[in-house]
This record gives sequence, structure tokens and C-alpha cells, in this order.
Amino acid sequence: MTVIGLGLMGRALAGAFLRAGHPTTVWNRTTSKADQLVAEGARLAPTVADALGAGSLTIICVTDYQAVYELLGASDGELDGKTLINLTSGDSTQAREAAQWAGQRGAHYLDGAIMAIPSAIGTAEAVILHSGPRPDFEAHRSTLDALGTVTYLGADQGLASLYDVAGLAMMWSVLNAWLQGTALLRTAGVDAATYAPFARQIAATVAEWLPGYAEQIDSGSFPAEVSALETDARAMAHLIEESETVGVNTELPKLFKSMADRSIAAGHGGEQYPVLIEEFSRPRKN
Amino acid sequence: MTVIGLGLMGRALAGAFLRAGHPTTVWNRTTSKADQLVAEGARLAPTVADALGAGSLTIICVTDYQAVYELLGASDGELDGKTLINLTSGDSTQAREAAQWAGQRGAHYLDGAIMAIPSAIGTAEAVILHSGPRPDFEAHRSTLDALGTVTYLGADQGLASLYDVAGLAMMWSVLNAWLQGTALLRTAGVDAATYAPFARQIAATVAEWLPGYAEQIDSGSFPAEVSALETDARAMAHLIEESETVGVNTELPKLFKSMADRSIAAGHGGEQYPVLIEEFSRPRKN
Repeated sequence: MTVIGLGLMGRALAGAFLRAGHPTTVWNRTTSKADQLVAEGARLAPTVADALGAGSLTIICVTDYQAVYELLGASDGELDGKTLINLTSGDSTQAREAAQWAGQRGAHYLDGAIMAIPSAIGTAEAVILHSGPRPDFEAHRSTLDALGTVTYLGADQGLASLYDVAGLAMMWSVLNAWLQGTALLRTAGVDAATYAPFARQIAATVAEWLPGYAEQIDSGSFPAEVSALETDARAMAHLIEESETVGVNTELPKLFKSMADRSIAAGHGGEQYPVLIEEFSRPRKN
Repeated sequence: MTVIGLGLMGRALAGAFLRAGHPTTVWNRTTSKADQLVAEGARLAPTVADALGAGSLTIICVTDYQAVYELLGASDGELDGKTLINLTSGDSTQAREAAQWAGQRGAHYLDGAIMAIPSAIGTAEAVILHSGPRPDFEAHRSTLDALGTVTYLGADQGLASLYDVAGLAMMWSVLNAWLQGTALLRTAGVDAATYAPFARQIAATVAEWLPGYAEQIDSGSFPAEVSALETDARAMAHLIEESETVGVNTELPKLFKSMADRSIAAGHGGEQYPVLIEEFSRPRKN
């Protein structure tokens, strides 16, 4: 198998393949980046064409999609019949365009996203998302397993990018809510370590609600089985007040309330929280 | 024991005490609200003074703190030597003021917050937070256990309110991030039920990081062991771009980035995410 692009992440990917015993060819514009990998048994390809020709599977992980086209475009005859997995960061539109580009050159194309830092690659902690035709994924799954927890999302090549940013949004949200709470509690002399287990418990509890709430979204019906959005909005006002009174930041609480208020103004105050999907699904007007 | 205030929540509290076999006195301005409880064995007190005098413990759960003072103020001679637990919604400042007011009248005062809907009261799901002197809590803990999962937070009476709003902030944050992700994925035809388990997993994983990240806050040192804030900010830009490209709301992603950008501008780009506690701990300077 071949790895093109030996930045921090590319080197981690190639290293994981080598450690798993897979014969690995690498290519990078600056060849010195390959030195350590060659010492570990990698073969350094002299050209991109040679790298693509070395086996049936190539993983590319470079700066951006423009770099993908520039590097592969000059040797694109080599793509015919090969599988290309693109782990370069980009958005769903870029992934779908790249799939089309690769398809026109006879390649099987999977788009991926790496939810891990380079040092975690090769461990179960490294979640690597893949999207594209399932048979192309299954054909190489056992090889890809060397990289970490390898996940298949669906045929639409844009999915890996969408799940990736959606997952990051969850990460930052949990962290931000925890920071808001920590800031509030520190005004009462409670240290972060004392508050953290409480925040952890709430986050884990609410996470368990999501599959149930998802049914409301899929059915488009939001009965207030647990509580009504207008009750949430009143409690949001309490959060803003409390944050103001003790002198901490109010931007996050105010954003909560602003979105809830718009939904209430649109007539959804008696429905349940997931009705906010309507606000989240469209750009803010004006 | 006595319950003053028989709104939906007050009735649920009194009902849980009765079901647990505790002799329960109730009072409400509109006496008909007590009918069902009386049928279940409660004693309806004719006056607030009589209600306060009925036992050593009184729980009050009314509209707001002003109503607490109005109701108890006329009979405050009865408070001497009694324990008053105030489960009325309010902020930490109101709780501390009420503690002082009750203390001046010789009462033991605990402030509480109910993290549950009325129908959950009496089950383990109902989390009820208490703050105030620990001996006053411990003296009544076995009685309070009838209400649900009863938690003691610390001596400062403001803590119950602070933990309550902090927990709610976590709840709304997890829900909002899930809605953002659901909105993104629906543009690719992925239904909410398909995406929800992924969101649940990320939320649960990130929740586990909080105790470790809390150590950075308590030590005031934020080495980028996992990743640097400027790396997060670049990924936030991806989230904004992706949200714009597929046409969903960008307010939450933009708030993430705006706070991160300010911290980076203040020189923290090379530090780890929890350094944002500095932004969360102060009002936004416009």
C-alpha cells in the first residue's frame, strides 16, 4: 500500500501500516520526511506515478484538496483500477467533487476524516471515518484496521467530512458548557476538579436522550413529553441572570435563548426542545 | 414534615413524602390544590404558622423568593429552631440572602434546586441539589431521600442554584450541538436516528476528558498536550464553512470561533482548549 504526503499525520499513517506488517510505499515532495519511515522498512517511491503504481491502494493526506489535484493530476493515468482514499481535510462538497474527478480516471474513491491527533494513530482511540462505495471500503478494511477504529458511514463521499465537523461541534459544545459552568462555580470558590464530575454526569445523561429525541425529528412531531420549549427559555433567562450577577461571560447563554426565543416566536413554545432543529437547519434571517 | 406551596412541583414533593410514609402537613393559599393530597393522607394546615409549627422540617416551593418572604414573613416567629429547605427557583444571590434572613430568625436554612420534572419526583431520576450547613442536611437526609437522588453540594447556600444553571447549560449545549450536527447530516439525507448514536458517543467521550482538563484550570497552566487552540480554531473555520456551504445555521459555530479567536489574540493560540476559561470567566469586552 502507498501513502502520499508525509506531514505529521501522513508519517503517523505510514508508520502504523509498517508496524502492522504491511509493505508500504511512501512519497513526499521533500524526501527527507521519509527518512525515519525508510529506516523502519518503507520504500521511498521516486515519483508519484511510481507510488500510485506500487499497489492497489493509495492513501493521500496532504494540505488541501488543491494539493491532491496537483500531485495526482500529472500521473492520473495510474489511477485506473486503483483505490484512492483521501484523508485530506476538506468539506463535503470538495469530497464529492474529488470522487467525481477520481471516478472519471477509473479510480475507486473513498473520502475519509481523521478524528485523532497523529500520536494516537494506530491505537483504538483514533477514529477514522470513511465514506464512499461500501465494496471499496470492505475490500481494504482489514488493511485500514491498522490505523485505529475504522468506521464506514455510507456511500455519499461527503459524509466523512460532515460527521467530522458535526462531531467537533459536539466536542466544543461540551467543553464550552463545562467552561461556562466552571466559571460560574469558581465565583463561589468551587474549583474545577470539584465541578467536573457533575458536568461529566450531566453530559453523559443528556447524551443518552439523543436517540429518543431523534425520533421526534424524524417524525416531524415534537410533543412536550418532558418539558416545553418555553419552560427551557425561562430557565435560560435564569442562566443569563446568574451569569451576569456573578460577572461571568453571557454569550453562550444568550445564544441559547436567542435561538429558543425565535422558535417560540414562530409558535413552537409549547413543543419540545428538538423543535429547534428548524432554527438550526436554516441560516439566521437578517 | 411540612410542604408549603402546592403548585405542580409542590404537590409532587408532598406526594412523594406521603408515599414514603412520612406524616405530611401541607399549606397552600388556594386550599383546593391540597384536595388530592388530603385524600392520600396529608393534613391541611389552616395557616402558615400552623404549617411551620407542625414539625421540625419545612420545605417551601413557590413562585419566587419574594413569595417566600411574603408567606413566611408574617409568621416568622415560628421559624426559630426549625429547618427550612427552600426549593423555590432563584439565583445564588437570592439564596444567600434568604439564608441570612432565615438565620436571623433562628432557622437552619438549606437552599435547593430540583433538576427534574414533577412527574419524576420520587424516582432516582429526580436529582435534587442542596446547599447549606452539612449538619442541617444530614439531619434530614433520610427524609429527603423520598424525593429522589438527593445531593449535597457544600456549605455556601448559593451552590445549588449555581450547579443547577451550570447543569442546564450543559444540557442545552449537548442538545444544540446535536441539532447542529443533525442539521448538517440531514442535508446529505442522513436521518436523525442514524446520526444520534454518533453524537451520543462523542458527547460521552468528551465528558470523560473533563476531570483531566479541570486539572489544567486549577493549576492555571494549559500546555497543548493534545492539541493547540489555534488548531481548534482552524477546524472551527471548517465547521463554519461546511455549515454555510450546505445552508444550515452558523450562529453556534461562529460563537465557538469568536471566543477562540479572542483567546488567540490574547496570546493563547499555542495553549490547550481549557485556557478559554479566561474568556468564559469575564463579560465580553465589546
